Amino acid sequence: MDNDMKAQGTMQKKIKIVRFDRNDQIAREDWVAREFPLTIILNGQELATLLCSPKDLKYLAAGFLFSEGFIETKEEITEMILDRQRGVVKVQTRGGKELTQASFLKRVITTGCGRAIAFYNPADIDGVQEVDSDVRLSPLNVFNLTKEFQRRSAVYRATGGVHSAALCDTEDIVIFAEDIGRHNAVDKIFGKCLLEDISTSDRIVITSGRISSEILFKVAKRQIPVIISKSAPTDLGVIVAQDLRITLIGFTRGKRMNVYAGEWRLQS
Amino acid sequence: MDNDMKAQGTMQKKIKIVRFDRNDQIAREDWVAREFPLTIILNGQELATLLCSPKDLKYLAAGFLFSEGFIETKEEITEMILDRQRGVVKVQTRGGKELTQASFLKRVITTGCGRAIAFYNPADIDGVQEVDSDVRLSPLNVFNLTKEFQRRSAVYRATGGVHSAALCDTEDIVIFAEDIGRHNAVDKIFGKCLLEDISTSDRIVITSGRISSEILFKVAKRQIPVIISKSAPTDLGVIVAQDLRITLIGFTRGKRMNVYAGEWRLQS
Repeated sequence: MDNDMKAQGTMQKKIKIVRFDRNDQIAREDWVAREFPLTIILNGQELATLLCSPKDLKYLAAGFLFSEGFIETKEEITEMILDRQRGVVKVQTRGGKELTQASFLKRVITTGCGRAIAFYNPADIDGVQEVDSDVRLSPLNVFNLTKEFQRRSAVYRATGGVHSAALCDTEDIVIFAEDIGRHNAVDKIFGKCLLEDISTSDRIVITSGRISSEILFKVAKRQIPVIISKSAPTDLGVIVAQDLRITLIGFTRGKRMNVYAGEWRLQS
Repeated sequence: MDNDMKAQGTMQKKIKIVRFDRNDQIAREDWVAREFPLTIILNGQELATLLCSPKDLKYLAAGFLFSEGFIETKEEITEMILDRQRGVVKVQTRGGKELTQASFLKRVITTGCGRAIAFYNPADIDGVQEVDSDVRLSPLNVFNLTKEFQRRSAVYRATGGVHSAALCDTEDIVIFAEDIGRHNAVDKIFGKCLLEDISTSDRIVITSGRISSEILFKVAKRQIPVIISKSAPTDLGVIVAQDLRITLIGFTRGKRMNVYAGEWRLQS
């Protein structure tokens, strides 16, 4: 385990704690997840500060800008400079959108776990449309992918504080990312796809987090046809999945799973 | 169990799913957590849309306005009208702060699970100071409170998608709230305290969620001396707890727990 831990050095930190077991007290060390504030400056304007795990920060910035509608392609980014010491990433875009859009501000002011869509109305959601994909997968594909996903979620198991996300085809994990925020983990995946020209077409997203409407909109923007989680969806998440023709699978446990939408993509 | 479920009717909904067990498919009904967009209009201006569980909405609005620094006391609220159909709560405040404060906008633009504090610097945090409380508690107090807290987290157990939060004294739970967002659950508790003149002095907060710096700032604003979670804190959460003299207890499991800060408040 100690070797695994070293590999994850940037994501977690050893601190001193006092463990109580009934009335016994033991001073010892334990791992906790790191929480790092990353400020995104877009075309000279402070856009957002993300509380995140300090790994894959450029992917996170690119994915965030994509998810929030500030960029569509890698070519729009003319410069990206990460200052890890100061926790700042400066991004310049070509003909880029600016923070002055009141609609952006309104949309992201939210609470709880993630960003808000004011009311669910597909026509309002910039660039989101039904997912058009003929991909099919078997229950066994889902069980195998979930098993491999759990195996790789090492930081989560060690510190109990980190979410994971993965981009997969029906057989294998293509990209894997971890972050203290479930939205960040998904943004890191899509940011890597954007910056490294990795296709998301006909691919599958696995997330360790709850599936709410916001995550559905995020994967729909990349035309992802299948989303899988060991957690539960919300009712609004299910409605959005049905409307956008996304296969939504939750509560994957061993050889069991619940399919909440788009079950026609499952074939034995 | 069906009676429990009826009592939670506003928080969850029965939907049709397909359950796969190995290769067997069974069409059945299952419960999912509801996700409700609540827009807060403060003094005629749209302030935020919270994605939340549709229960205790006035408490949520009041708690959110307090946590974000728009109100300090109940008396500042001159009117609060909830339109449940439209998902809107209109709040009028006396001499109230307005959305034009750029600092508010910058502060809450964030990702992942919650709102961001740009950089950790106590002097920057409006109204947050060291918690001054002589309260002491025993490990047994913590184990008993945690046990009762778990017992009451009924919606979470049924749907796997809801967070809980509670305000306690050393012996009993005083207020209990649930929400799909861990920040919302805590805001509901503090909103109820505000609107119903319930003291938070020398009291304890239990949350089902991860303890990040944001939650620490939120409880510090109410001078809460102890926070407990079955989940893990982040490193920044631990630093903030130490600096603000808050006792931070995580990973409570049965008769075991980890104390990350302020262990002097624990006495057998």
